[in-house]
Amino acid sequence: MNREALISQIKKKESFLCIGLDTDLKKIPRHLLAFEDPIFEFNKQIIDATKDVCIAYKPNIAFYESMGSKGWVSLQRTLEYIPDDIFTIADAKRGDIGNTSKLYARAFFESLNFDSVTVAPYMGKDSVVPFLEFKDKWAIILLLTSNKGALDFQYVDTRNRKLLFEHVLETSVKWGTDQNTMYVVGATRAEELNQIRKRIPKHFLLVPGFGVQGGSLTDVAKYGMNSDCGILVNSSRGIIYASSGKDFAEQATLEAEKIQKEMAVILSKFGI
Amino acid sequence: MNREALISQIKKKESFLCIGLDTDLKKIPRHLLAFEDPIFEFNKQIIDATKDVCIAYKPNIAFYESMGSKGWVSLQRTLEYIPDDIFTIADAKRGDIGNTSKLYARAFFESLNFDSVTVAPYMGKDSVVPFLEFKDKWAIILLLTSNKGALDFQYVDTRNRKLLFEHVLETSVKWGTDQNTMYVVGATRAEELNQIRKRIPKHFLLVPGFGVQGGSLTDVAKYGMNSDCGILVNSSRGIIYASSGKDFAEQATLEAEKIQKEMAVILSKFGI
Repeated sequence: MNREALISQIKKKESFLCIGLDTDLKKIPRHLLAFEDPIFEFNKQIIDATKDVCIAYKPNIAFYESMGSKGWVSLQRTLEYIPDDIFTIADAKRGDIGNTSKLYARAFFESLNFDSVTVAPYMGKDSVVPFLEFKDKWAIILLLTSNKGALDFQYVDTRNRKLLFEHVLETSVKWGTDQNTMYVVGATRAEELNQIRKRIPKHFLLVPGFGVQGGSLTDVAKYGMNSDCGILVNSSRGIIYASSGKDFAEQATLEAEKIQKEMAVILSKFGI
Repeated sequence: MNREALISQIKKKESFLCIGLDTDLKKIPRHLLAFEDPIFEFNKQIIDATKDVCIAYKPNIAFYESMGSKGWVSLQRTLEYIPDDIFTIADAKRGDIGNTSKLYARAFFESLNFDSVTVAPYMGKDSVVPFLEFKDKWAIILLLTSNKGALDFQYVDTRNRKLLFEHVLETSVKWGTDQNTMYVVGATRAEELNQIRKRIPKHFLLVPGFGVQGGSLTDVAKYGMNSDCGILVNSSRGIIYASSGKDFAEQATLEAEKIQKEMAVILSKFGI
Protein backbone atom coordinates (compact mmCIF):
# COMPACT_ATOMS: atom_id res chain seq x y z
CA MET A 1 0.00 0.00 0.00
CA ASN A 2 1.38 3.41 -0.88
CA ARG A 3 1.31 6.58 1.18
CA GLU A 4 -1.70 8.10 -0.58
CA ALA A 5 -3.83 5.01 -0.12
CA LEU A 6 -2.92 4.89 3.55
CA ILE A 7 -3.85 8.54 4.09
CA SER A 8 -7.09 8.03 2.22
CA GLN A 9 -8.01 5.10 4.52
CA ILE A 10 -7.28 7.24 7.58
CA LYS A 11 -9.58 9.96 6.32
CA LYS A 12 -12.31 7.57 5.27
CA LYS A 13 -12.40 5.70 8.58
CA GLU A 14 -11.52 8.74 10.72
CA SER A 15 -9.04 6.51 12.47
CA PHE A 16 -5.31 6.02 12.84
CA LEU A 17 -5.69 2.90 14.93
CA CYS A 18 -3.39 -0.06 14.38
CA ILE A 19 -4.36 -3.27 16.17
CA GLY A 20 -1.57 -5.56 17.33
CA LEU A 21 -2.31 -9.22 16.76
CA ASP A 22 -0.22 -10.57 19.66
CA THR A 23 -2.20 -13.77 19.59
CA ASP A 24 -1.26 -16.13 22.41
CA LEU A 25 -2.75 -19.61 22.80
CA LYS A 26 -2.63 -19.13 26.58
CA LYS A 27 -4.70 -15.96 26.47
CA ILE A 28 -7.40 -16.57 23.87
CA PRO A 29 -10.85 -17.69 25.06
CA ARG A 30 -10.90 -21.39 25.92
CA HIS A 31 -13.79 -22.29 23.60
CA LEU A 32 -11.59 -21.46 20.57
CA LEU A 33 -9.22 -24.30 21.38
CA ALA A 34 -11.74 -26.69 19.81
CA PHE A 35 -11.00 -25.20 16.38
CA GLU A 36 -8.41 -26.81 14.12
CA ASP A 37 -6.43 -23.52 14.04
CA PRO A 38 -7.40 -21.55 17.17
CA ILE A 39 -4.91 -18.75 16.48
CA PHE A 40 -6.36 -18.06 13.06
CA GLU A 41 -9.94 -18.40 14.36
CA PHE A 42 -9.23 -15.80 17.05
CA ASN A 43 -7.61 -13.43 14.53
CA LYS A 44 -10.46 -13.91 12.07
CA GLN A 45 -13.05 -12.97 14.65
CA ILE A 46 -10.97 -10.02 15.86
CA ILE A 47 -10.58 -8.80 12.28
CA ASP A 48 -14.30 -9.15 11.58
CA ALA A 49 -15.00 -7.25 14.80
CA THR A 50 -12.61 -4.35 14.23
CA LYS A 51 -11.90 -3.93 10.52
CA ASP A 52 -14.26 -0.97 10.14
CA VAL A 53 -12.54 1.14 12.76
CA CYS A 54 -8.84 0.40 12.34
CA ILE A 55 -6.52 1.15 9.45
CA ALA A 56 -3.75 -1.35 10.20
CA TYR A 57 -3.07 -4.76 11.74
CA LYS A 58 0.29 -5.58 13.25
CA PRO A 59 0.93 -9.27 13.95
CA ASN A 60 3.81 -9.65 16.38
CA ILE A 61 5.86 -12.32 14.64
CA ALA A 62 7.29 -13.81 17.85
CA PHE A 63 3.85 -15.08 18.84
CA TYR A 64 3.57 -17.07 15.61
CA GLU A 65 7.17 -18.20 15.51
CA SER A 66 6.94 -19.61 19.02
CA MET A 67 4.41 -22.11 17.61
CA GLY A 68 6.76 -23.41 14.91
CA SER A 69 5.53 -24.30 11.43
CA LYS A 70 1.90 -24.32 12.62
CA GLY A 71 2.26 -20.72 13.74
CA TRP A 72 3.59 -19.79 10.36
CA VAL A 73 0.49 -21.31 8.73
CA SER A 74 -1.78 -19.34 11.11
CA LEU A 75 0.11 -16.19 10.19
CA GLN A 76 -0.25 -16.84 6.48
CA ARG A 77 -3.99 -17.49 6.81
CA THR A 78 -4.36 -14.32 8.88
CA LEU A 79 -2.62 -12.23 6.23
CA GLU A 80 -4.82 -13.68 3.53
CA TYR A 81 -7.90 -12.84 5.60
CA ILE A 82 -7.05 -9.18 6.26
CA PRO A 83 -8.92 -6.98 3.73
CA ASP A 84 -6.68 -5.45 1.06
CA ASP A 85 -7.48 -1.89 2.06
CA ILE A 86 -6.00 -2.37 5.54
CA PHE A 87 -2.27 -1.73 6.03
CA THR A 88 -0.30 -4.66 7.43
CA ILE A 89 2.81 -4.53 9.60
CA ALA A 90 5.06 -7.52 10.32
CA ASP A 91 6.38 -6.62 13.75
CA ALA A 92 9.53 -8.64 13.33
CA LYS A 93 12.39 -6.26 14.20
CA ARG A 94 14.68 -7.93 11.69
CA GLY A 95 18.05 -6.71 10.43
CA ASP A 96 21.11 -8.59 9.16
CA ILE A 97 23.83 -8.34 6.52
CA GLY A 98 22.50 -7.41 3.07
CA ASN A 99 21.89 -10.81 1.49
CA THR A 100 20.16 -12.01 4.66
CA SER A 101 17.97 -8.92 5.06
CA LYS A 102 16.93 -9.44 1.46
CA LEU A 103 15.64 -12.88 2.36
CA TYR A 104 13.71 -11.49 5.35
CA ALA A 105 12.22 -8.87 3.03
CA ARG A 106 11.13 -11.60 0.62
CA ALA A 107 9.66 -13.65 3.45
CA PHE A 108 7.47 -10.79 4.65
CA PHE A 109 6.79 -8.83 1.46
CA GLU A 110 6.53 -11.66 -1.07
CA SER A 111 5.58 -14.92 0.68
CA LEU A 112 3.29 -13.25 3.21
CA ASN A 113 2.45 -10.06 1.31
CA PHE A 114 2.86 -7.70 4.28
CA ASP A 115 2.93 -3.98 3.49
CA SER A 116 5.70 -3.28 5.99
CA VAL A 117 8.25 -4.78 8.38
CA THR A 118 9.78 -3.32 11.52
CA VAL A 119 13.60 -3.34 11.30
CA ALA A 120 16.39 -2.85 13.84
CA PRO A 121 19.08 -0.34 12.81
CA TYR A 122 22.16 -1.56 14.75
CA MET A 123 23.81 -3.18 11.70
CA GLY A 124 23.49 -0.02 9.60
CA LYS A 125 22.55 0.89 6.06
CA ASP A 126 23.07 -2.40 4.23
CA SER A 127 20.87 -4.17 6.79
CA VAL A 128 17.92 -1.83 6.10
CA VAL A 129 18.16 -0.92 2.40
CA PRO A 130 17.02 -4.37 1.16
CA PHE A 131 13.64 -3.61 2.78
CA LEU A 132 13.32 -0.39 0.77
CA GLU A 133 13.57 -1.98 -2.64
CA PHE A 134 10.02 -3.27 -2.99
CA LYS A 135 7.36 -1.08 -4.62
CA ASP A 136 4.72 0.19 -2.18
CA LYS A 137 6.35 -1.68 0.73
CA TRP A 138 7.79 -0.07 3.84
CA ALA A 139 10.62 -0.46 6.33
CA ILE A 140 9.64 0.79 9.78
CA ILE A 141 12.91 1.55 11.54
CA LEU A 142 13.20 1.24 15.34
CA LEU A 143 14.10 4.68 16.60
CA LEU A 144 12.86 5.14 20.14
CA THR A 145 11.12 2.17 21.67
CA SER A 146 8.56 2.19 24.50
CA ASN A 147 10.39 -0.22 26.82
CA LYS A 148 12.66 0.59 29.74
CA GLY A 149 15.71 -0.82 27.95
CA ALA A 150 15.38 2.01 25.40
CA LEU A 151 17.38 4.04 27.92
CA ASP A 152 20.40 1.74 27.69
CA PHE A 153 21.57 2.72 24.20
CA GLN A 154 19.00 4.83 22.36
CA TYR A 155 19.69 7.78 24.68
CA VAL A 156 23.48 7.48 24.69
CA ASP A 157 25.13 10.88 24.26
CA THR A 158 27.22 10.99 21.14
CA ARG A 159 30.10 13.39 20.75
CA ASN A 160 28.37 15.58 18.21
CA ARG A 161 25.89 16.51 20.96
CA LYS A 162 23.22 14.22 19.66
CA LEU A 163 21.62 11.28 21.37
CA LEU A 164 22.01 7.98 19.54
CA PHE A 165 18.39 7.89 18.38
CA GLU A 166 18.85 11.35 16.85
CA HIS A 167 21.94 10.12 15.08
CA VAL A 168 20.06 7.04 13.84
CA LEU A 169 17.30 9.31 12.55
CA GLU A 170 19.62 11.74 10.81
CA THR A 171 21.61 8.97 9.15
CA SER A 172 18.81 6.60 8.18
CA VAL A 173 16.50 9.28 6.81
CA LYS A 174 18.88 9.51 3.85
CA TRP A 175 18.47 5.82 2.98
CA GLY A 176 14.87 6.08 1.80
CA THR A 177 11.99 8.50 1.49
CA ASP A 178 8.70 9.24 3.24
CA GLN A 179 7.17 6.88 0.67
CA ASN A 180 9.00 3.77 1.91
CA THR A 181 10.28 4.51 5.42
CA MET A 182 8.49 4.98 8.73
CA TYR A 183 9.88 5.12 12.27
CA VAL A 184 8.90 3.46 15.54
CA VAL A 185 8.56 5.96 18.38
CA GLY A 186 7.04 4.66 21.63
CA ALA A 187 3.93 6.40 22.99
CA THR A 188 5.78 6.72 26.30
CA ARG A 189 8.23 9.17 24.62
CA ALA A 190 5.78 12.01 23.86
CA GLU A 191 8.31 14.83 24.30
CA GLU A 192 10.82 13.27 21.98
CA LEU A 193 7.98 12.73 19.49
CA ASN A 194 7.71 16.47 19.18
CA GLN A 195 11.38 16.86 18.41
CA ILE A 196 11.35 13.93 15.95
CA ARG A 197 8.32 15.38 14.17
CA LYS A 198 10.18 18.65 13.66
CA ARG A 199 13.09 16.86 12.03
CA ILE A 200 10.94 14.68 9.80
CA PRO A 201 7.74 16.61 9.13
CA LYS A 202 6.36 14.19 6.55
CA HIS A 203 7.29 10.64 7.58
CA PHE A 204 4.73 8.35 9.15
CA LEU A 205 5.48 7.23 12.70
CA LEU A 206 4.35 3.93 14.19
CA VAL A 207 3.55 4.57 17.83
CA PRO A 208 3.28 1.49 20.07
CA GLY A 209 2.93 1.54 23.84
CA PHE A 210 -0.45 3.25 23.95
CA GLY A 211 -2.86 1.78 26.51
CA VAL A 212 -1.39 -1.04 28.63
CA GLN A 213 2.14 0.42 28.38
CA GLY A 214 0.88 3.84 29.51
CA GLY A 215 1.14 6.34 26.63
CA SER A 216 -1.60 8.99 26.21
CA LEU A 217 -3.43 9.43 22.91
CA THR A 218 -3.82 13.19 23.32
CA ASP A 219 -0.10 13.67 23.91
CA VAL A 220 0.83 11.41 21.02
CA ALA A 221 -1.42 13.38 18.67
CA LYS A 222 -0.32 16.74 20.04
CA TYR A 223 3.36 16.01 19.51
CA GLY A 224 3.34 13.51 16.64
CA MET A 225 0.59 14.44 14.22
CA ASN A 226 1.18 16.25 10.94
CA SER A 227 -1.18 17.54 8.26
CA ASP A 228 -1.55 14.04 6.72
CA CYS A 229 -2.10 12.56 10.20
CA GLY A 230 1.34 10.94 10.02
CA ILE A 231 0.89 8.57 12.97
CA LEU A 232 -0.29 5.02 13.34
CA VAL A 233 -1.08 4.37 17.00
CA ASN A 234 -1.01 0.74 18.04
CA SER A 235 -3.01 -1.00 20.73
CA SER A 236 -2.72 -4.76 21.20
CA ARG A 237 -3.75 -6.34 24.50
CA GLY A 238 -6.23 -3.60 25.44
CA ILE A 239 -8.37 -4.51 22.44
CA ILE A 240 -7.81 -8.15 21.58
CA TYR A 241 -7.95 -9.30 25.22
CA ALA A 242 -10.68 -6.88 26.33
CA SER A 243 -12.59 -9.99 27.39
CA SER A 244 -11.40 -13.55 27.91
CA GLY A 245 -14.91 -14.95 27.47
CA LYS A 246 -17.10 -15.83 24.53
CA ASP A 247 -17.88 -12.14 24.07
CA PHE A 248 -14.22 -11.32 23.25
CA ALA A 249 -15.05 -10.12 19.72
CA GLU A 250 -17.91 -7.85 20.85
CA GLN A 251 -15.72 -6.41 23.59
CA ALA A 252 -12.90 -5.85 21.08
CA THR A 253 -15.35 -3.93 18.87
CA LEU A 254 -16.36 -1.74 21.81
CA GLU A 255 -12.76 -1.02 22.81
CA ALA A 256 -11.66 -0.29 19.26
CA GLU A 257 -14.70 1.92 18.63
CA LYS A 258 -13.99 3.86 21.80
CA ILE A 259 -10.48 4.61 20.60
CA GLN A 260 -11.64 5.35 17.05
CA LYS A 261 -14.12 7.92 18.34
CA GLU A 262 -11.37 9.70 20.27
CA MET A 263 -9.27 9.60 17.13
CA ALA A 264 -12.09 11.06 15.01
CA VAL A 265 -12.32 14.01 17.40
CA ILE A 266 -8.56 14.54 17.27
CA LEU A 267 -8.45 14.32 13.46
CA SER A 268 -11.25 16.81 13.19
CA LYS A 269 -9.45 19.22 15.55
CA PHE A 270 -6.43 18.96 13.27
CA GLY A 271 -8.67 19.60 10.25
CA ILE A 272 -7.90 16.22 8.68
CA MET B 1 25.29 -27.06 26.08
CA ASN B 2 27.34 -25.49 28.85
CA ARG B 3 30.72 -23.80 28.61
CA GLU B 4 32.71 -26.81 29.81
CA ALA B 5 31.10 -29.16 27.32
CA LEU B 6 31.81 -26.70 24.51
CA ILE B 7 35.47 -26.35 25.48
CA SER B 8 35.81 -30.10 25.76
CA GLN B 9 34.44 -30.52 22.20
CA ILE B 10 36.92 -27.94 20.91
CA LYS B 11 39.81 -29.83 22.49
CA LYS B 12 38.59 -33.23 21.36
CA LYS B 13 38.10 -32.21 17.73
CA GLU B 14 40.99 -29.73 17.67
CA SER B 15 38.63 -27.34 15.97
CA PHE B 16 36.73 -24.12 16.64
CA LEU B 17 34.94 -24.23 13.32
CA CYS B 18 31.29 -23.26 13.12
CA ILE B 19 29.53 -24.04 9.84
CA GLY B 20 26.80 -21.69 8.70
CA LEU B 21 23.81 -23.48 7.20
CA ASP B 22 22.71 -20.67 4.86
CA THR B 23 20.81 -23.16 2.77
CA ASP B 24 19.30 -21.65 -0.35
CA LEU B 25 17.10 -23.55 -2.75
CA LYS B 26 18.67 -21.59 -5.61
CA LYS B 27 22.20 -22.63 -4.71
CA ILE B 28 21.98 -26.27 -3.72
CA PRO B 29 22.86 -28.92 -6.33
CA ARG B 30 20.02 -29.48 -8.78
CA HIS B 31 19.71 -33.23 -8.19
CA LEU B 32 18.54 -32.57 -4.62
CA LEU B 33 15.37 -30.88 -5.86
CA ALA B 34 13.91 -34.33 -6.48
CA PHE B 35 13.76 -34.93 -2.72
CA GLU B 36 10.58 -34.17 -0.77
CA ASP B 37 12.52 -31.73 1.46
CA PRO B 38 15.60 -30.61 -0.51
CA ILE B 39 16.71 -28.13 2.16
CA PHE B 40 16.81 -30.80 4.83
CA GLU B 41 18.44 -33.30 2.47
CA PHE B 42 21.21 -30.81 1.70
CA ASN B 43 21.73 -30.03 5.40
CA LYS B 44 21.74 -33.73 6.30
CA GLN B 45 24.47 -34.49 3.77
CA ILE B 46 26.49 -31.44 4.83
CA ILE B 47 26.19 -32.48 8.48
CA ASP B 48 27.25 -36.06 7.70
CA ALA B 49 30.18 -34.69 5.71
CA THR B 50 31.45 -32.20 8.30
CA LYS B 51 30.33 -33.24 11.78
CA ASP B 52 33.71 -34.71 12.74
CA VAL B 53 35.64 -31.50 12.11
CA CYS B 54 33.31 -28.72 13.30
CA ILE B 55 32.03 -27.92 16.77
CA ALA B 56 28.98 -25.83 15.85
CA TYR B 57 26.30 -25.38 13.20
CA LYS B 58 24.67 -22.02 12.63
CA PRO B 59 21.49 -22.04 10.53
CA ASN B 60 20.74 -18.54 9.26
CA ILE B 61 17.05 -18.27 10.10
CA ALA B 62 16.20 -15.91 7.22
CA PHE B 63 16.89 -18.68 4.72
CA TYR B 64 14.30 -20.93 6.36
CA GLU B 65 11.78 -18.18 7.07
CA SER B 66 11.81 -17.08 3.44
CA MET B 67 10.31 -20.49 2.62
CA GLY B 68 7.35 -20.09 4.97
CA SER B 69 6.01 -22.97 7.06
CA LYS B 70 7.89 -25.52 4.91
CA GLY B 71 11.14 -23.77 5.77
CA TRP B 72 10.30 -24.02 9.43
CA VAL B 73 9.80 -27.78 9.07
CA SER B 74 13.18 -28.11 7.29
CA LEU B 75 14.78 -26.17 10.14
CA GLN B 76 13.17 -28.38 12.78
CA ARG B 77 14.30 -31.56 11.01
CA THR B 78 17.82 -30.13 10.67
CA LEU B 79 18.00 -29.38 14.39
CA GLU B 80 16.83 -32.88 15.23
CA TYR B 81 19.50 -34.31 12.94
CA ILE B 82 22.46 -32.39 14.38
CA PRO B 83 24.30 -34.63 16.90
CA ASP B 84 23.79 -33.59 20.54
CA ASP B 85 27.49 -32.94 21.14
CA ILE B 86 27.58 -30.18 18.50
CA PHE B 87 26.72 -26.63 19.60
CA THR B 88 23.84 -25.01 17.68
CA ILE B 89 23.34 -21.32 16.94
CA ALA B 90 20.09 -19.80 15.66
CA ASP B 91 21.40 -16.86 13.68
CA ALA B 92 18.22 -14.85 14.08
CA LYS B 93 19.32 -11.43 15.40
CA ARG B 94 16.15 -11.07 17.44
CA GLY B 95 15.36 -8.50 20.14
CA ASP B 96 12.07 -6.96 21.26
CA ILE B 97 10.29 -5.83 24.43
CA GLY B 98 10.52 -8.33 27.29
CA ASN B 99 7.40 -10.44 26.78
CA THR B 100 8.13 -10.72 23.05
CA SER B 101 11.81 -11.61 23.47
CA LYS B 102 10.65 -14.33 25.87
CA LEU B 103 8.55 -15.84 23.09
CA TYR B 104 11.49 -15.73 20.67
CA ALA B 105 13.60 -17.43 23.33
CA ARG B 106 10.98 -20.16 23.69
CA ALA B 107 10.75 -20.58 19.92
CA PHE B 108 14.47 -21.20 19.58
CA PHE B 109 15.41 -22.78 22.92
CA GLU B 110 12.32 -24.88 23.59
CA SER B 111 10.50 -25.65 20.32
CA LEU B 112 13.68 -26.01 18.28
CA ASN B 113 16.14 -26.86 21.07
CA PHE B 114 18.93 -24.54 19.86
CA ASP B 115 21.81 -23.94 22.28
CA SER B 116 22.03 -20.25 21.44
CA VAL B 117 20.45 -17.33 19.57
CA THR B 118 22.06 -14.19 18.15
CA VAL B 119 20.38 -11.05 19.54
CA ALA B 120 20.42 -7.37 18.56
CA PRO B 121 21.10 -4.96 21.44
CA TYR B 122 19.38 -1.73 20.27
CA MET B 123 16.35 -2.15 22.55
CA GLY B 124 18.49 -2.64 25.65
CA LYS B 125 18.52 -4.87 28.71
CA ASP B 126 14.91 -6.09 28.84
CA SER B 127 15.16 -7.18 25.20
CA VAL B 128 18.17 -9.43 25.91
CA VAL B 129 17.66 -10.74 29.45
CA PRO B 130 14.81 -13.15 28.49
CA PHE B 131 17.39 -15.08 26.44
CA LEU B 132 19.62 -15.49 29.51
CA GLU B 133 17.08 -17.26 31.67
CA PHE B 134 17.36 -20.77 30.21
CA LYS B 135 19.79 -23.25 31.73
CA ASP B 136 22.79 -24.02 29.48
CA LYS B 137 21.43 -21.75 26.72
CA TRP B 138 23.19 -18.68 25.36
CA ALA B 139 22.48 -15.22 24.03
CA ILE B 140 25.06 -14.13 21.46
CA ILE B 141 24.90 -10.34 21.40
CA LEU B 142 25.73 -8.40 18.22
CA LEU B 143 28.67 -6.20 19.08
CA LEU B 144 30.71 -5.47 15.99
CA THR B 145 29.42 -6.96 12.78
CA SER B 146 31.40 -7.81 9.66
CA ASN B 147 29.32 -5.77 7.18
CA LYS B 148 30.00 -2.28 5.87
CA GLY B 149 26.93 -0.86 7.67
CA ALA B 150 28.67 -1.63 10.99
CA LEU B 151 30.36 1.75 10.51
CA ASP B 152 27.04 3.64 10.59
CA PHE B 153 26.28 3.23 14.28
CA GLN B 154 28.57 0.71 15.96
CA TYR B 155 31.53 3.09 15.65
CA VAL B 156 29.69 6.24 16.72
CA ASP B 157 31.74 8.29 19.19
CA THR B 158 29.94 8.63 22.50
CA ARG B 159 30.66 11.49 24.86
CA ASN B 160 32.46 9.34 27.43
CA ARG B 161 35.15 8.77 24.80
CA LYS B 162 33.92 5.34 23.93
CA LEU B 163 32.63 4.05 20.63
CA LEU B 164 29.07 2.72 20.71
CA PHE B 165 30.14 -0.92 20.48
CA GLU B 166 32.40 -0.40 23.50
CA HIS B 167 29.50 1.09 25.39
CA VAL B 168 27.27 -1.83 24.37
CA LEU B 169 29.94 -4.22 25.60
CA GLU B 170 30.49 -2.48 28.92
CA THR B 171 26.76 -2.24 29.62
CA SER B 172 25.61 -5.65 28.42
CA VAL B 173 28.42 -7.59 30.07
CA LYS B 174 26.67 -6.92 33.39
CA TRP B 175 23.43 -8.56 32.25
CA GLY B 176 24.78 -12.09 32.17
CA THR B 177 27.94 -14.11 32.65
CA ASP B 178 30.51 -15.90 30.52
CA GLN B 179 28.32 -18.99 31.03
CA ASN B 180 25.32 -17.61 29.13
CA THR B 181 26.56 -14.70 26.99
CA MET B 182 28.76 -14.57 23.92
CA TYR B 183 29.43 -11.71 21.51
CA VAL B 184 29.47 -11.41 17.73
CA VAL B 185 32.64 -9.76 16.45
CA GLY B 186 33.24 -9.84 12.69
CA ALA B 187 36.44 -11.43 11.39
CA THR B 188 36.99 -8.23 9.39
CA ARG B 189 37.52 -6.33 12.71
CA ALA B 190 40.71 -8.05 13.87
CA GLU B 191 42.17 -5.01 15.64
CA GLU B 192 39.05 -4.36 17.64
CA LEU B 193 38.99 -8.05 18.52
CA ASN B 194 42.19 -7.52 20.43
CA GLN B 195 40.73 -4.67 22.40
CA ILE B 196 37.46 -6.56 23.07
CA ARG B 197 39.38 -9.62 24.23
CA LYS B 198 41.24 -7.49 26.77
CA ARG B 199 37.96 -6.21 28.23
CA ILE B 200 36.28 -9.62 28.38
CA PRO B 201 39.07 -12.15 28.80
CA LYS B 202 36.77 -15.14 29.36
CA HIS B 203 33.69 -14.73 27.13
CA PHE B 204 33.32 -16.74 23.96
CA LEU B 205 33.19 -14.71 20.74
CA LEU B 206 31.35 -15.79 17.61
CA VAL B 207 33.39 -14.61 14.65
CA PRO B 208 31.61 -14.55 11.30
CA GLY B 209 32.99 -13.07 8.10
CA PHE B 210 35.90 -15.47 7.73
CA GLY B 211 36.48 -16.69 4.17
CA VAL B 212 34.18 -15.14 1.56
CA GLN B 213 33.85 -11.90 3.57
CA GLY B 214 37.63 -11.62 3.85
CA GLY B 215 38.75 -12.12 7.47
CA SER B 216 42.00 -13.99 8.18
CA LEU B 217 42.08 -16.99 10.52
CA THR B 218 45.56 -16.22 11.81
CA ASP B 219 44.60 -12.66 12.74
CA VAL B 220 41.37 -13.74 14.38
CA ALA B 221 43.23 -16.29 16.50
CA LYS B 222 46.08 -13.89 17.31
CA TYR B 223 43.73 -11.19 18.59
CA GLY B 224 40.69 -13.14 19.78
CA MET B 225 41.86 -16.39 21.32
CA ASN B 226 42.09 -16.99 25.06
CA SER B 227 43.33 -19.95 27.11
CA ASP B 228 40.03 -21.84 26.63
CA CYS B 229 40.12 -21.02 22.89
CA GLY B 230 37.21 -18.59 23.37
CA ILE B 231 36.36 -18.17 19.70
CA LEU B 232 33.96 -19.88 17.34
CA VAL B 233 34.90 -18.99 13.78
CA ASN B 234 32.12 -19.32 11.23
CA SER B 235 32.35 -20.20 7.57
CA SER B 236 29.20 -20.65 5.51
CA ARG B 237 29.33 -20.37 1.73
CA GLY B 238 33.00 -21.35 1.45
CA ILE B 239 32.18 -24.81 2.82
CA ILE B 240 28.57 -25.62 1.99
CA TYR B 241 28.82 -24.34 -1.59
CA ALA B 242 32.38 -25.55 -2.23
CA SER B 243 30.89 -27.43 -5.18
CA SER B 244 27.54 -27.05 -6.89
CA GLY B 245 27.65 -30.58 -8.30
CA LYS B 246 26.89 -34.04 -6.98
CA ASP B 247 30.21 -34.01 -5.12
CA PHE B 248 29.11 -31.08 -2.89
CA ALA B 249 29.35 -33.13 0.31
CA GLU B 250 32.84 -34.48 -0.48
CA GLN B 251 34.02 -30.98 -1.37
CA ALA B 252 32.49 -29.63 1.85
CA THR B 253 34.44 -32.26 3.80
CA LEU B 254 37.66 -31.24 2.08
CA GLU B 255 37.09 -27.51 2.74
CA ALA B 256 36.12 -28.08 6.36
CA GLU B 257 39.06 -30.41 6.95
CA LYS B 258 41.45 -27.87 5.49
CA ILE B 259 40.24 -25.23 7.94
CA GLN B 260 40.20 -27.69 10.84
CA LYS B 261 43.83 -28.58 10.19
CA GLU B 262 44.82 -24.91 10.30
CA MET B 263 42.84 -24.60 13.52
CA ALA B 264 44.57 -27.64 15.05
CA VAL B 265 47.95 -26.00 14.38
CA ILE B 266 46.78 -22.73 15.95
CA LEU B 267 45.33 -24.47 19.03
CA SER B 268 48.53 -26.38 19.52
CA LYS B 269 50.57 -23.16 19.28
CA PHE B 270 48.36 -21.70 22.01
CA GLY B 271 48.88 -24.86 24.10
CA ILE B 272 45.17 -25.81 24.01
